[in-house]
Formats: sequence, structure tokens, C-alpha cells
Amino acid sequence: MRTFVTGAAGFIGSNLVDRLLAAGHEVTGFDNLSTGFRRFLEGAEANARFRLIEGDLLDLEAVTRAMAGADCVFHLAANADVRFGPDHPRRDLEQNTIVTWNVLEAMRAAGARRIAFPSTGSVYGEPEIFPTPETAPFPVQTSLYAASKLAAEGMITAYVAAFGFQAYIFRFVSILGERYTHGHVLDFYRQLREHPRRLDVLGDGRQRKSYLYVQDCVNAILLAVEGCTGAVNILNLGTDEYCQVNDSIGWISGHLGLTPELQYAGGERGWVGDSPFIFLDCARMRALGWKPELTIEQGIIRTLEFLRRNPWVLEARV
Amino acid sequence: MRTFVTGAAGFIGSNLVDRLLAAGHEVTGFDNLSTGFRRFLEGAEANARFRLIEGDLLDLEAVTRAMAGADCVFHLAANADVRFGPDHPRRDLEQNTIVTWNVLEAMRAAGARRIAFPSTGSVYGEPEIFPTPETAPFPVQTSLYAASKLAAEGMITAYVAAFGFQAYIFRFVSILGERYTHGHVLDFYRQLREHPRRLDVLGDGRQRKSYLYVQDCVNAILLAVEGCTGAVNILNLGTDEYCQVNDSIGWISGHLGLTPELQYAGGERGWVGDSPFIFLDCARMRALGWKPELTIEQGIIRTLEFLRRNPWVLEARV
Repeated sequence: MRTFVTGAAGFIGSNLVDRLLAAGHEVTGFDNLSTGFRRFLEGAEANARFRLIEGDLLDLEAVTRAMAGADCVFHLAANADVRFGPDHPRRDLEQNTIVTWNVLEAMRAAGARRIAFPSTGSVYGEPEIFPTPETAPFPVQTSLYAASKLAAEGMITAYVAAFGFQAYIFRFVSILGERYTHGHVLDFYRQLREHPRRLDVLGDGRQRKSYLYVQDCVNAILLAVEGCTGAVNILNLGTDEYCQVNDSIGWISGHLGLTPELQYAGGERGWVGDSPFIFLDCARMRALGWKPELTIEQGIIRTLEFLRRNPWVLEARV
Repeated sequence: MRTFVTGAAGFIGSNLVDRLLAAGHEVTGFDNLSTGFRRFLEGAEANARFRLIEGDLLDLEAVTRAMAGADCVFHLAANADVRFGPDHPRRDLEQNTIVTWNVLEAMRAAGARRIAFPSTGSVYGEPEIFPTPETAPFPVQTSLYAASKLAAEGMITAYVAAFGFQAYIFRFVSILGERYTHGHVLDFYRQLREHPRRLDVLGDGRQRKSYLYVQDCVNAILLAVEGCTGAVNILNLGTDEYCQVNDSIGWISGHLGLTPELQYAGGERGWVGDSPFIFLDCARMRALGWKPELTIEQGIIRTLEFLRRNPWVLEARV
């Protein structure tokens, strides 16, 4: 395939780029390097089938030009920050909703018709069914982030109906692993480096969360894009387990040999729009023959090991 | 209430303005007159409690300034055209999604916290449950219009979570009645004025549709805004019946004393994203004591009578 990857220098994007190259595909990466890191692409840039275009997805002309010749678009670029949405409400609209529209329009102009898109399990809001299937009752959005991802999902499937696109929409739980640059493992690790005897925890620590290892996530994306022939393919992605924030704290502290005193901010949500329980039914994805290789605990430890080997990530992300 | 009505010169907007004034409220109307008509506000403009501000909702500063002092916002402005979405895909993004974000931000700046918003029964895509309840399974969007309305719904409920807003979201069937300016009754009436013996029909005429009379719609909006105390109130609005396009053709032709030859374009959908069956479960709204006064047939005849009395509408809308 001639692939086009937005957010190519990001956490999931750069892992996907490496895997696409390893599978023999051509890859054009597109990134404005606002939250991605060029060093995540060091391996890719040594490959003749890869090129990186630095550009802004808000610039429709630039992205249309860059996309020439592509047949499959992996639109990974996003504002992935959920917690601070209310501090800058335009960011989700711009970086997730409007940018996705630009990607769709660029595809239409460039003649690319296949799009893979990472949505989020947060689009289920605060569901009543666990594990939550793709066909859960019509949800009410509780965060600007999820609302912007749902807006993007809607536009994508409307483009399928109007313009004959084919879409692969993945509703992720939180992703962990090498090149992880934001989230609770980084927050906890940073804190424990600064003050090993104390850990500040958002909420009451009893939030139940699911996590998936990034290579398992990329496996699923590649498998679905190769194997699903439907026009609209919506697939939950997660493990068949969940953990409490407190479990994660135990694994991280244990791995670091620390026994910090825990100071809870309190409340059953970590922040506005935080869902106290995320656990997705991934039967659709499993029916394609996929299953995650790592448990949540293993994914968390891998992430911690990545951060220990790459302390520059902590300094780059204040 | 000190109310702010966007799209005040539009079909539903101007009917709502008249009713708000009749109920003793203060009304600031905001409209760019791109698809609305100032003559729909002739009655309102004679009332001291009304003022019209001509402005564009894409101009965040203008709408914030205009909204000063308002406590309840009725955000009726929209691109209401579904059929031609694929001809100008940016219009739904801009006029429905981005504009709604501007309205929400203006509200935040102006200190207004209550918003009533007309969404659409089209957000259910092509549902499998009829009549379709608000809690239908998570739908797949099939039109740019519905996708943009769903995007707006999501942003609105995220603002409820993040900023303590209170929201009234109405998922309408098609609305009919006085000041109707686009839709199948106008299309059919225009055709029959031009060539009384022939009627071109999109699809196969067997599409099953629901319609609601505009005063019944306004009754519901006012009742819900007065009576619902929840933070997020999502309410279907329609009649407890549906008709086939062919039924509507029979009523319109019969009322005009014509027997045109019907020429069907064929296919079960009138256009891309047209839902072949729309029929909403309105039990939630009925539980508030509301019920529609007019049947679909009565609503269609009222609409036809309005168009006969106001042929300028047909000339204004080519």
C-alpha cells in the first residue's frame, strides 16, 4: 500500500510507521511536530520507503499536496489530552474535528478512499453496560475530547455514504508502551522521581480503567485494514480485563521498589469528563483472530521501562 | 426570561420568537439573513421586547457581544439542507458544528448557561428499532448534516459536564407549517405550479417519513425548557404516526385538485444519506404532558396553504 500517516511522529503514529515499513509498504508521514518527536522516526528515516513531511493539518492545501498518490490514510494526529480540555476548549474542535474534515477533503481531492481512524472508548460517555459493545445505547458525551472524536467518526461515516470511502474506526482504551509520552504512568513516574515517598492521585484511586499495549493496538489496526471488507468497520480495542488506578500504583511502585504514601484528591472521577469505569467488549475485533499479547500489568511495566530508559521524555513534557 | 434566539428569521426560529414574545419574554434575535427572511419578523419587530441583531455566528466576538445579559439561548441557526450536503461538505461543518461551538463559547463568556438546541432524528442513521427511542443503539451517521448535528450535540453535553450548562436537545422529525421555506411540500408545490400534470419524485415514493407541525414543535420546546430540571435533556419530537411520500403526494394533489403523472427517480432513498424510514418514539416528551395537535396530513395541508398565500417564498428559494 501507499500509506499516509498523520501524526507520524507521535506515540502510536511512529510505532505504526515502523510496522508499515517492516511490512513493505510505502509511508508518507505528516506531522507538525507540535507534540510528536522526530527522534521517534529515526529508524523510519533510514528507510527509503519513508518520507516525512512537516506540515499543519489545518492547512488543507498542504495536506492535499502531501497526500498525492496515497491510497490508505491512517489519521493518527489528534489532540490526545482529555484532562485539560476545559482549559482550552477550542483545541479539540480544531485539532480533532476540523483537522479530520481537512483530512477527508484532502483524501477526496487526492483520490484516497480508505481511512483508519483512532477514536476512543470515551465516546461511550458513562455507559451502563460492561464490557461495553460497539452497539451500546446512544451515549451522552461527557468530555470535549470524546465529543470531538465522535464528531470525527460521524464525518468519516458520512463520507463513506456520500463519496464511497471505506472506514476503519477504532475505539481505543488508553494505549501504553514504548514512546508513550503522556498519561498516568508518566505522571506517577515523574512524581516518584521527584518525591519517592509521596504520590498524589487524582480521584479516589478506585477508577476502573482498561489499557492496551501499543504493539497489540497496531496489530489490530493492520489486521482490520487488511481483513475487513465492509464500508464502515467500527471496532473496540482493549484487553479483556481492567484494573483500578490503585492496582497500577502498586505495580509501578513495586517495580521501582518504592512504598509511597498515597494522597488522594478524592471523588470518583480524576477530572471533568473522566469516566470512572472503562471496559470495552472487543468481541468484534477478536472475531478477526486478534488477541492482545500483553496484560495490562505487563503493558504498564513496559511503559515504565521505556520511561526509565528515556528520561528525556519527562523533560520534554512538562 | 431574557432569551437569545439564533436563526431568529428562519422558519422555526421566527415562530419561536413570536411565541416567546407572546409569553412575555425578552427576545434578542440573531440572524445573518442568509436563509431567513426579515418579513417573518414583522410582527416581532413591532414589539418593544424584541430586537434583531444582524450578524454572523462565525464571528465569535459579535455573537458574544450580542448575547450580553441573556440567560437562555435557543440556538436555531443551522444549515438545514440535508440533500445537497455532498455538494458543499464544508457548509455543515461550518454552519452547524463550528457555529455551535461559537455559541457555546459566547454563552460561557456572557454567563448564559441554558441552551435549547434542535438536533435531528437523522442522527439515528438507519435505525433498526421503530419507533426509535433516544436510547437506540449507537448509530452510524449517514449524512454530513446529521453528523454535524451530532457533533453539536456532543459539544453541548460536554459543556454541561465541563461548565455547568443545562441543555435541551430536541431530535426533530421534519417540521412543517407556516413560514416553511424548504422541503418536499415546497418542491412538489413548485413543480405542480410549473407543470400540473407531472410530478417528479425522488426515490420510489415508498420512503416512510414523519412530520411535525411547527406550533406543536414550539409547544414542545417551551414546555421542556420550562419543565425539565435535568442537566442534559434529550427529547425526540415527532407525531405518533408516519406516512409514505406517496401519501403526501396524494394529499397535496388532492388539495390542489390535480392528478399528476408520477415519475419516480427510483431507489429506496431520495438522495445520499436519506433515511428510508424515520419514526421516533416520543414517549419522553409525551410524559411531560405534550401531544401534537395536528396530524401529518393536517400539517401538510397547512404548509400548502401557507405557500399558496405566500408565493414569494417559492420565488425567493430557487
